[in-house]
Amino acid sequence: MTAPTFTAVTPAVLEQIQAIVGENNMSTTQADIDLHAHDEGHHDAHPAEVVVWPRSAQQVADMLKLANENHIPVTPWGVGTGLEGNSIPVRGGILLSLQRMDKVVEVHMDDFQVTVEPGIPYMDLNEQLARYGLFFAPDPGANATIGGMLANNAAGIRTVKYGALRDNVLKMQVALADGRLIEVGSRSIKQSSGYDLLHLFVGSEGTLGVITQATLKLLPVPEHMIAAIAGFESVEDAIETVVAVRGSGIDVAALEFIDVTNTHAMNQAGAEIEPLPTLLMEVHSAHESSMAEDIAIVQEICEEMGASNFRATSDLAERKKLWHARHIAYETLRRINPGQRIWIMDVAVPISNYPALIAGARRIIDEAGIVGYMKGHAGDGNIHVELPFGDEETLEKVHVVNNAIVREALALEGTATGEHGVGIGKAQFMEEEHGESLNVMRSIKNLLDPNGILNPGKVFPE
Amino acid sequence: MTAPTFTAVTPAVLEQIQAIVGENNMSTTQADIDLHAHDEGHHDAHPAEVVVWPRSAQQVADMLKLANENHIPVTPWGVGTGLEGNSIPVRGGILLSLQRMDKVVEVHMDDFQVTVEPGIPYMDLNEQLARYGLFFAPDPGANATIGGMLANNAAGIRTVKYGALRDNVLKMQVALADGRLIEVGSRSIKQSSGYDLLHLFVGSEGTLGVITQATLKLLPVPEHMIAAIAGFESVEDAIETVVAVRGSGIDVAALEFIDVTNTHAMNQAGAEIEPLPTLLMEVHSAHESSMAEDIAIVQEICEEMGASNFRATSDLAERKKLWHARHIAYETLRRINPGQRIWIMDVAVPISNYPALIAGARRIIDEAGIVGYMKGHAGDGNIHVELPFGDEETLEKVHVVNNAIVREALALEGTATGEHGVGIGKAQFMEEEHGESLNVMRSIKNLLDPNGILNPGKVFPE
Repeated sequence: MTAPTFTAVTPAVLEQIQAIVGENNMSTTQADIDLHAHDEGHHDAHPAEVVVWPRSAQQVADMLKLANENHIPVTPWGVGTGLEGNSIPVRGGILLSLQRMDKVVEVHMDDFQVTVEPGIPYMDLNEQLARYGLFFAPDPGANATIGGMLANNAAGIRTVKYGALRDNVLKMQVALADGRLIEVGSRSIKQSSGYDLLHLFVGSEGTLGVITQATLKLLPVPEHMIAAIAGFESVEDAIETVVAVRGSGIDVAALEFIDVTNTHAMNQAGAEIEPLPTLLMEVHSAHESSMAEDIAIVQEICEEMGASNFRATSDLAERKKLWHARHIAYETLRRINPGQRIWIMDVAVPISNYPALIAGARRIIDEAGIVGYMKGHAGDGNIHVELPFGDEETLEKVHVVNNAIVREALALEGTATGEHGVGIGKAQFMEEEHGESLNVMRSIKNLLDPNGILNPGKVFPE
Repeated sequence: MTAPTFTAVTPAVLEQIQAIVGENNMSTTQADIDLHAHDEGHHDAHPAEVVVWPRSAQQVADMLKLANENHIPVTPWGVGTGLEGNSIPVRGGILLSLQRMDKVVEVHMDDFQVTVEPGIPYMDLNEQLARYGLFFAPDPGANATIGGMLANNAAGIRTVKYGALRDNVLKMQVALADGRLIEVGSRSIKQSSGYDLLHLFVGSEGTLGVITQATLKLLPVPEHMIAAIAGFESVEDAIETVVAVRGSGIDVAALEFIDVTNTHAMNQAGAEIEPLPTLLMEVHSAHESSMAEDIAIVQEICEEMGASNFRATSDLAERKKLWHARHIAYETLRRINPGQRIWIMDVAVPISNYPALIAGARRIIDEAGIVGYMKGHAGDGNIHVELPFGDEETLEKVHVVNNAIVREALALEGTATGEHGVGIGKAQFMEEEHGESLNVMRSIKNLLDPNGILNPGKVFPE
């Protein structure tokens, strides 16, 4: 696949954009361009030529048709919380922000479903759903939009119980590069009718189409929740405990590993954790009794593995404090490493290979002689390594460490990205991970986006 | 899409087949041709020209390459339990039976995963897994092969809790029409790396490729299981109870609706059910206490809705008797309707529209003046209607009833098939259900199988 050739956004094109979205829903000011030039990760910023905020699915489709006919790149944008440059407009062109399409279209109470526009952030959605006693389970941390989460197959803390985005969506409306609007999936939770296009678009990072509406699965808010925390003498003990808890068959709702360096960071955010390799867990249940039985088994396993400070709490304030500290851990790390940027990496492996992954990552970091913070959705075999850098020399080392850890994960039957997506950063590993499948992906990309206008420079190595 | 032109299986081609699989793994005898000319449904039989039993993924790939180069149709075959003609070789050519690729390749104990060849029947797999305390949850009833179940996105009785095939597979190896062997998905339960080709092949009914290996998710065998049965005064009461049980948030493992006609059939198989509109349920749990709490709530809901004979049992023999009667209900119906064939149909809707679907189906059947048995995986909004016919006149009516019920389901935001797949029978509804998406499916079909050799005559209307 050779890189496509693009055309600049001319005044004539700007006029056509205005005809589609109106002058209040587009901008070429430096402030707006800058705001949409970077995400939360370490990748370099790159400006688009125009930022456009469509207000309807038809406007999205019309924008794509216009861009396609004029060979102009289009980069979809949620709220910019990506970490691998997934929504950085690296080829310029049109930055298509879905932020003004943020309505709840319909709550289907009896079906435990909600239909939304793509620009609604998931925490806002959950606030609106609280009155129905329902919630949308995936919880990536930063307040991402539903559209961005779907495009990225985001996941997060509760995935071990509730699944990733691909497990929590039933139906979508998608605008294609040529301006067609299609519906994929079904509100029927069972469907065996034709090809599964729904999951083809989930996780395709805006390179195959733009999601303009989605119907999501919801769950009743669990009546009982209990959080637990335990520190271990060694990383190995903590990680073996993860495998043991998963193996017990207990359906934990969160099972997070936090290394010592990260406990310091979380304590700065008020967590009050002993500086030990730590597991942070949560159990949800409709019944108090079964929750108590579950947490007792978890405690037994932790203590067998040497945890001396196992602590469980169903107190709402205390639970919130712990999870808040976990959620803002990345921001805290940035704060305690002033003047430095942080490269945050993401890989995942089958759970049985998780101890080997953690040991390998630590060895690679130490051998490079740099600082690396580790934490991860351990119940899923998913680890994030945060690597601060302040100068070119360290950046060079961080780069080497990143690549070595990804290759370690691939060698352990894992994946180059568990939840952050490919974006710019992981494209170089796609050939190694997918082999001949990557050519099938390429051919599907060429089929649906022959001019290569949709989020160019992402997913595929060039 | 015009129907592709095919070439006959010549003696020269037979020689090439023999060079790939050996003479003991191919047959042109009438007995073998006849055995692979029909499935368990009502569709007319059609003979292949040769039956081939590859023994390895490479042999499957080589067979496809040969067929592709010679423009010969290939129809993949599991064990023939399909119901919509999904594996009937309607264009002749090569019948590719996967039955001799039936090995368990590897049990990944700590990961709760197993890697298998496609020809292993799921009940046989579960027998082999019992020693590990693990099981593969989907349970379509007839002892289908894993490959056939994946190709069809099969589901069944336990889908309400454990999901369909697409929810229970992590990775597959697939042979493409041009002879390439690719790997899709990952043993890592989290993966956000590139396009989701895994789910594109699941449910594609062998029209995009042939599954040659699969890694499945397993679960610990639940320690506690309880079955419950309740009869209601009216179909409406039974169906409203389904919606209420689902709405309670209790994670039932089975929630089956059985109409009066079907209770007679099940009693002939030893079920001892009162002749009332009936719900047959099951709850699984790791804890006896929470199971008891769950079943108490279910009982309360059933009795509020007028059930007078609620009965729950955790006795293994009694549970097995009930589920056995349910599993063989279709066979029993065939036995009590001697000399007749049975058209069994399958549609699904969002649960909130289930009462309307059941009422509509009953009205359509009664207006046509024919016999129709209804039962369904009610917890999923899925219904099967069994329509016996013994002559052309009744068949004509059955046809009309089938089409009307499918259109009723589509009007209720449902699907033409919840779990039996499209095959021959549902192809005519694809345009209505999918609209412009069907053209996207067609273009993907043409991309991956440009000569149209893979299971021709299925999924797409011609």
